[in-house]
Amino acid sequence: MTRRIILVDPLPRTLDLIMTPDVRRRLERMGEVVVSEDRTMPDEVVERLLPETVLIFGQTAMDRARLECAPHLKAIINVETNFLPNVDYQAAQDRGVHVITPASAFAAPVAEAALGMAIDLARGITKADRLFRDGRESYGLAANRETFRFMGSSVGLIGFGDLGRQFRELICPFRNTVRIFDPWLPAEVIERAEAIPASLDEVLSESRTVAVFAGVTSENQNFIGAREFALMQPGSSFLLMSRAGVVDFPAFLDAVRSGHIRAATDVFPEEPVAADDPVRQIPGLLLSAHRTGGTSDAFHAIGAMAVADAELILRGLPPVLCRRADPATAARLRSKPVDLS
Amino acid sequence: MTRRIILVDPLPRTLDLIMTPDVRRRLERMGEVVVSEDRTMPDEVVERLLPETVLIFGQTAMDRARLECAPHLKAIINVETNFLPNVDYQAAQDRGVHVITPASAFAAPVAEAALGMAIDLARGITKADRLFRDGRESYGLAANRETFRFMGSSVGLIGFGDLGRQFRELICPFRNTVRIFDPWLPAEVIERAEAIPASLDEVLSESRTVAVFAGVTSENQNFIGAREFALMQPGSSFLLMSRAGVVDFPAFLDAVRSGHIRAATDVFPEEPVAADDPVRQIPGLLLSAHRTGGTSDAFHAIGAMAVADAELILRGLPPVLCRRADPATAARLRSKPVDLS
Amino acid sequence: MTRRIILVDPLPRTLDLIMTPDVRRRLERMGEVVVSEDRTMPDEVVERLLPETVLIFGQTAMDRARLECAPHLKAIINVETNFLPNVDYQAAQDRGVHVITPASAFAAPVAEAALGMAIDLARGITKADRLFRDGRESYGLAANRETFRFMGSSVGLIGFGDLGRQFRELICPFRNTVRIFDPWLPAEVIERAEAIPASLDEVLSESRTVAVFAGVTSENQNFIGAREFALMQPGSSFLLMSRAGVVDFPAFLDAVRSGHIRAATDVFPEEPVAADDPVRQIPGLLLSAHRTGGTSDAFHAIGAMAVADAELILRGLPPVLCRRADPATAARLRSKPVDLS
Amino acid sequence: MTRRIILVDPLPRTLDLIMTPDVRRRLERMGEVVVSEDRTMPDEVVERLLPETVLIFGQTAMDRARLECAPHLKAIINVETNFLPNVDYQAAQDRGVHVITPASAFAAPVAEAALGMAIDLARGITKADRLFRDGRESYGLAANRETFRFMGSSVGLIGFGDLGRQFRELICPFRNTVRIFDPWLPAEVIERAEAIPASLDEVLSESRTVAVFAGVTSENQNFIGAREFALMQPGSSFLLMSRAGVVDFPAFLDAVRSGHIRAATDVFPEEPVAADDPVRQIPGLLLSAHRTGGTSDAFHAIGAMAVADAELILRGLPPVLCRRADPATAARLRSKPVDLS
Repeated sequence: MTRRIILVDPLPRTLDLIMTPDVRRRLERMGEVVVSEDRTMPDEVVERLLPETVLIFGQTAMDRARLECAPHLKAIINVETNFLPNVDYQAAQDRGVHVITPASAFAAPVAEAALGMAIDLARGITKADRLFRDGRESYGLAANRETFRFMGSSVGLIGFGDLGRQFRELICPFRNTVRIFDPWLPAEVIERAEAIPASLDEVLSESRTVAVFAGVTSENQNFIGAREFALMQPGSSFLLMSRAGVVDFPAFLDAVRSGHIRAATDVFPEEPVAADDPVRQIPGLLLSAHRTGGTSDAFHAIGAMAVADAELILRGLPPVLCRRADPATAARLRSKPVDLS
Repeated sequence: MTRRIILVDPLPRTLDLIMTPDVRRRLERMGEVVVSEDRTMPDEVVERLLPETVLIFGQTAMDRARLECAPHLKAIINVETNFLPNVDYQAAQDRGVHVITPASAFAAPVAEAALGMAIDLARGITKADRLFRDGRESYGLAANRETFRFMGSSVGLIGFGDLGRQFRELICPFRNTVRIFDPWLPAEVIERAEAIPASLDEVLSESRTVAVFAGVTSENQNFIGAREFALMQPGSSFLLMSRAGVVDFPAFLDAVRSGHIRAATDVFPEEPVAADDPVRQIPGLLLSAHRTGGTSDAFHAIGAMAVADAELILRGLPPVLCRRADPATAARLRSKPVDLS
Repeated sequence: MTRRIILVDPLPRTLDLIMTPDVRRRLERMGEVVVSEDRTMPDEVVERLLPETVLIFGQTAMDRARLECAPHLKAIINVETNFLPNVDYQAAQDRGVHVITPASAFAAPVAEAALGMAIDLARGITKADRLFRDGRESYGLAANRETFRFMGSSVGLIGFGDLGRQFRELICPFRNTVRIFDPWLPAEVIERAEAIPASLDEVLSESRTVAVFAGVTSENQNFIGAREFALMQPGSSFLLMSRAGVVDFPAFLDAVRSGHIRAATDVFPEEPVAADDPVRQIPGLLLSAHRTGGTSDAFHAIGAMAVADAELILRGLPPVLCRRADPATAARLRSKPVDLS
Repeated sequence: MTRRIILVDPLPRTLDLIMTPDVRRRLERMGEVVVSEDRTMPDEVVERLLPETVLIFGQTAMDRARLECAPHLKAIINVETNFLPNVDYQAAQDRGVHVITPASAFAAPVAEAALGMAIDLARGITKADRLFRDGRESYGLAANRETFRFMGSSVGLIGFGDLGRQFRELICPFRNTVRIFDPWLPAEVIERAEAIPASLDEVLSESRTVAVFAGVTSENQNFIGAREFALMQPGSSFLLMSRAGVVDFPAFLDAVRSGHIRAATDVFPEEPVAADDPVRQIPGLLLSAHRTGGTSDAFHAIGAMAVADAELILRGLPPVLCRRADPATAARLRSKPVDLS
């Protein structure tokens, strides 16, 4: 091999979106960068480059046959941040090719917004602003009849991946009792985070604020439905931060519309939401248009994590920032591609 | 003395507002409780009781003459939480009568709301909800063109009393660079809180979020005006959490209306705000009707702190939860009584 | 008054011991400094200077008569850090003269050493070093038969002043269950520090490590004796960090010598300890010659806190770093002067 | 397969050493447990069981041929906590067999002891005890001439794996400036831990306390030698907590003996140390006989982490507590087996 190709095929991202000039220079120091960002890299270009390719950044289709054409390939780095069925994960593992993605890039901005929303729901911030603009505000104690203090209240998390962990860290000064439901984790991991491992029903019935951070899998679609919302305490808060698919959305809206709970959601079954969707008129619902993760620093984190791990891999070291695709579990993930840009 | 009177004269508070049943029982264990809460305790009642009074909870007028009629009086505990000119502070000190108030009772709920509002302004939460309801929402990156991450951003505090300290503690996980202006404090106190002592101008010009927690004194009225707002970075946030009197309010509204800064305010020069006040229509202003402190737990904290310190005083120990009136500085404080209930 | 005298009479301290050049320059900016540090300032000098004195740094005798000769005096700042009977505290208060001392100056170095000693006792660090030097060391698990993990173990504090608070902060990452006995404090203060208010007996019987941070008063001398040591769990640790007088010292040594508990002490009934004192041979006792507080940075903190508060006082503001003498409680304190230098 | 064998071959551990009764019951619920702990499991037994084995706990030799005889094997869980050449890691990965080890089990007790030792060296705790027993103690400031405050001082870490991270967390309240050298990690990981990525030379020359937490690899043996010790500041502390092989041991002892640095070590080139080894007489060296990790709770953590991850693996989920063997990097690790029991 005389060349060291770095194949960059980042759609729906672009290189400028995910890399600051500084990170891009680090990328260029690792090899000869070939980019296709106005369209998916054409098959003939991919196939011509593979024999000399050491790294792929992007969602290029990589079946077993293509992997076999890429004897120097060290890593495929998905910059979409969801593992898709575009790679033969088992074949990649068999050949010692790392398949990784900077899955945690969006965790920090989403967790920050989730705390803002949790306080907002508890203390009625957005609602009070709306009433004030309508000339219907109350003052002092009268304005707090339906509020609760977030400090010291009980919090329940559904899903304790990167997002849940960031959120748990941000709420530390609030001294909440925190219960966590995550069937993919042993109790030890939850206890180390000074939280209580709990069943889904316990999380729902014991928490004044419930935040959903779980991804969608083939097994958990709509797993929070009418029965589950009924378990929640009247007046408690529900934050839907990860994927709309984990809840039965009509049942969710019913629970908010009836006044049983208050809620915030950053995700919707169909995005963009239809202009006449009645979701836009529910008073107890804080609306966020899939916007809590898509900050420019989060996109830059994708590139920074991807490049840092690529540098390690080229030195023969294991990646430490990105998540590895596990052939067994990748199959369970069903995230449909979501374009945050 | 055969009786031990505890004189309770709590208006504008009531005993039920400020004491849970549990705390009230502790109050009653200290002596014979005489309460007047439908009106200020009449002079003749006060004067009849003073010779056997050990504690006063409330804002009863206590000039030197009355103090001389109360030989067993150990403490006057203001439950308004602002020192007013109702007491001859020097005479009380001369007689060894503690004059104290649970000044920090509202700090925790205000600090919590301030963090919610700081994240709200940075990430555009309330504004995005309003746009969504109007059918004008954007998604993902497009919805974040004017946002900034609160995490890691620069924060400036004006005033570092109980409120500022609570806020500083709550933002610890956000790893902000924090600058503090408080002319009543030595640099050591600010540095111990892992913050940078700074001038007012530095706080304003270097911070992406500025939060005002200072009380009003005879010296600092309107000390943040047009010149000061002009020092702020375009697009930065301003939170007014303590007293409207510390800012030049028209200059403040101009700075927001022009789009130079975004802001939240919990206080207004006149409360309630007039129905047709144009403040209600400023898009970049998050409106809160003097409601961030007035939660029921904050009122209960008044009673709990007052009773706990009274118990210590009756045992001959110094109070530790309430603030002591300092004759010299009490004169500087000009807070007009604000009724949060 | 044409001069503004600052009278400095710091024995047993010296000005160089307690002030860095920087702090000394701040002192000199406040007035005309007159120092006597080879001997206590002679009466005739004191009396000549008092009419023009604004600040006293030191332990100068200040009875009512002298106070009356000092019409411009704003503060007496004890740099010994213990209030002594040299001042008429009531008369000073009556005249509005602040009497303060930087009592917390030694808290930080003592707390740091206390944590080192707590881990040392739990894990057997000094003892293992001694065995190793004697050629009697064990390795691995065999060397840990009598150790316990400090992480997660129960800790009890006796006294929760500056020292106890610093210690509580340092152990936060260790996630101990912390019980605190402090009869001068309401439960609220202890609960805010995420600890459990407890009786002395509970602290002793429930804690794997007990640390004594209480000062001596006229009421608590020798309050931890044979009965109290018997309450402790076998193999638990006892740290004596404040004053020897709070324990019945012979009973303490018996409890250690018998092997019932392990212990560390920084204080002794007589200092220096006699050359032939059998305390030097007790294997389970970690010995420290009243040295945990006396670091040079602690002495410098005395001067820095004293000068910072003096600056505030001269501006008409209340001091915030030093402790105020309370005429009522000053009488209870019985600390005999201890010279740490 | 009619049986589900769990093959337990834990030497040099025993099952009782690494599992509490509770954890053992969880082990037994996963299958039929076959244990050999008086000797390594004989070949004929292993080979007879493999066809029905689902899990191996221990260091059983597993070459490619044996792996092929174990069609139901899901995981090999090394309970030695060091990956050894007993497994064909590539063959295991190819067959989807997890090879993992609870590598972090010893991190918590070692980090705790390291903090105790860091404070000990800074403040002279063990040394002061020795002087006191010899009748040569000093008091107060005189006893602190060679001490430094650990609080606020500069700290350098060499190696930032589990151990370094635990240590970094424990020292948070001490507000040190922390520099970290770890060539296996990108700067991002170090910066997230609020530390400064630094070269080895910077860590050595800028830190008042240097702690070595790095494991030995084929590349880093003796990488800290005379040149490196000379870079350290006079009077600074050096803690050797991981493997003796990372330092040039004679050069290390010279640096301590000469008085240039003070040090603590938990590891030695030959263990047990010879009775007449002069290392036993070096005054500035705190001696620990490879005992900081070997606490009973650490051994129990091995079993608890191993069983928790085995439970996940049997449910088709990825392990989350143990470290995975990476065929590429396993080859670099050269830890010779160390028996902590």
